Amino acid sequence: MAQRHPDPTDPRGEPVPADALAAYLRAQAVEFLRALRLHREAGTQSAAPCGPDAEEPADAALALRRSARRISGTLHTYQPLLDADWAEAMRPELAWLSGTLSREHACASRLERLLTTLHRLSGTPAFPGPAAPAGRAAVAAPASGPAGTAVPVARTALPDRGQLTVGAARAGALLDRRLTLARTRAHSAALQALGSSRFHAVADAVALLASEVPLRAGAAGADLRAPAAAAEGRLTDAVTALPLASAGHPYNAQALDQGLSPDAAPHPQDAPWLQVRLLLRLHRYAREVLLGPGGTDPDAAWLGAAGQALDRHRDAAEAAAEAAQAARTPRIAPATAYALGVLHAAQRHEVEAARYAFRHGRQRAATGTPR
Amino acid sequence: MAQRHPDPTDPRGEPVPADALAAYLRAQAVEFLRALRLHREAGTQSAAPCGPDAEEPADAALALRRSARRISGTLHTYQPLLDADWAEAMRPELAWLSGTLSREHACASRLERLLTTLHRLSGTPAFPGPAAPAGRAAVAAPASGPAGTAVPVARTALPDRGQLTVGAARAGALLDRRLTLARTRAHSAALQALGSSRFHAVADAVALLASEVPLRAGAAGADLRAPAAAAEGRLTDAVTALPLASAGHPYNAQALDQGLSPDAAPHPQDAPWLQVRLLLRLHRYAREVLLGPGGTDPDAAWLGAAGQALDRHRDAAEAAAEAAQAARTPRIAPATAYALGVLHAAQRHEVEAARYAFRHGRQRAATGTPR
Repeated sequence: MAQRHPDPTDPRGEPVPADALAAYLRAQAVEFLRALRLHREAGTQSAAPCGPDAEEPADAALALRRSARRISGTLHTYQPLLDADWAEAMRPELAWLSGTLSREHACASRLERLLTTLHRLSGTPAFPGPAAPAGRAAVAAPASGPAGTAVPVARTALPDRGQLTVGAARAGALLDRRLTLARTRAHSAALQALGSSRFHAVADAVALLASEVPLRAGAAGADLRAPAAAAEGRLTDAVTALPLASAGHPYNAQALDQGLSPDAAPHPQDAPWLQVRLLLRLHRYAREVLLGPGGTDPDAAWLGAAGQALDRHRDAAEAAAEAAQAARTPRIAPATAYALGVLHAAQRHEVEAARYAFRHGRQRAATGTPR
Repeated sequence: MAQRHPDPTDPRGEPVPADALAAYLRAQAVEFLRALRLHREAGTQSAAPCGPDAEEPADAALALRRSARRISGTLHTYQPLLDADWAEAMRPELAWLSGTLSREHACASRLERLLTTLHRLSGTPAFPGPAAPAGRAAVAAPASGPAGTAVPVARTALPDRGQLTVGAARAGALLDRRLTLARTRAHSAALQALGSSRFHAVADAVALLASEVPLRAGAAGADLRAPAAAAEGRLTDAVTALPLASAGHPYNAQALDQGLSPDAAPHPQDAPWLQVRLLLRLHRYAREVLLGPGGTDPDAAWLGAAGQALDRHRDAAEAAAEAAQAARTPRIAPATAYALGVLHAAQRHEVEAARYAFRHGRQRAATGTPR
């Protein structure tokens, strides 16, 4: 086993001075500006959106979101050590930016997840090929008449496979149309945001941050471990409040509870899990500050596994809600609605599987690396 | 821990003479005749089908099926020791009888399973009360016009709960109508069978068996452990061929594979599990013969748990197929079809859960009681 790195929040260790906070924020600001430059260059150079450079804007947008999230989370956790007015003004702007930039990718990956599941369920490529969200340029969806009146069956030549596989094909076409449209809108919104004066104000503030971090008076002598421990405490409390005993029991079928209730999208039972996902991210960023550049988190394995499980939870829950929402399209065929019902339930079981994975990953971490 | 009983098939133990086979068959024949008498008495006495005696015919039918299955299974396993012509003529007749008698109960419990799941899914009693299959007399379903044109919503007063809960209510009403009709037909078929000359021939043959078991010449000196071990070998081979590695992995999502394929009902992937269920039953009956009256099977716990898991597998698979079949009713509302899709997937996950339970019950038995 590799040598275990010390826990950065260990109260028996060395205090971590506020310098580390300033250095982390400066580094993230530099990352943000670099990603922004890359994004602009990629946008200028590549006229053909499907060329080899097509993924560059997506990568740059990812890097922009990544540093925006880290700056925002750090302002939250270490707010007692920062200029309060500045931090309070900055956070919602960063949240707006990363939210706006994430939507296009979310639509693409939701469509991919749903079509992949439909493919598995029908055992045939009953819809137009697997989606390739990263490399595929957003195209404008055809203007639709009264929603869903006549969802065209996928244009691939289908063998005669009976009603339900036609249902899967139609469900795939309906989801493709809905999510491609949503993705196109998200793409336009992101482009518009990046050209807005609101965005330029954020970029200016981040540029200032790259040279000078507005620490609160007297913060220089503070120990960063206290706010980091508080962030960990909030995470621990939220995890303790989760229904982990039932989540650890395989096939408990709870994720489908009230799945046919009209209040089902979003599911109220998901909220505490989504909250833990956000708190886990704040905890991870808080530790990055303490560990400093090049520092390796001794909890990296568990943090990574838990984060993956919670991402899967979020993605599956949103995909399930999308299937349920698509099923409310007026005048769809019963076979389409049936396929969407199966798809919804399959995604809710993914939600349940993600909770199980979170629960058992945590248990393995607890027994493998006692703290 | 209780004292461990010796394994009846242990080759180091005492041989089991053919007398035990004759005694077992005679005892089962006596059980059969007793159940038949009870069934006739209950049918004559209780004019009111909902009175306190209403369950007696069901209990008697259960006892009839129970002994018919045991006689049939025993004829199969120990056929080398029995008069071949007689055994070969007898088995299909017993299979016909137990099959005919089981259908009414199967329809009732399938409906109960589906309505219970719908209830959990919708979080409301959105259909007419929980089914009470054992005590509830089969009533004739109203003659239906073009199937499913206008499925009436359940007559209980429903609060305004939006489209999907109405979908659950309609799905419940549709399933109730289909399975009540099927149950009524099964009830009539069972009554007709019990009055047929074919049944009287079976009853006469069983009555003969109660007094004399037609052993093959030379069987008196045989050891019953050899045919019992062969039955166990057939079970072991079939279990070994099951995809136990993936079934032991929770949330493997395999039971839903090809769930939208038109060939999905019955699912081809279920066949080996259904076969193991039958072989396990033959194995259990073969051991009952060896253990003799009052004998306790040392493997009773594992045989019971495995049998329950496989029964659950069969029941959930049939309920899932019923939901899929109901969804093909022409002209149903999309909300009804959506609810049936969710219901189908929920039952397929029950199938998967049952495989998981079988796999892990077997593992626990293997580590807890080494053989």
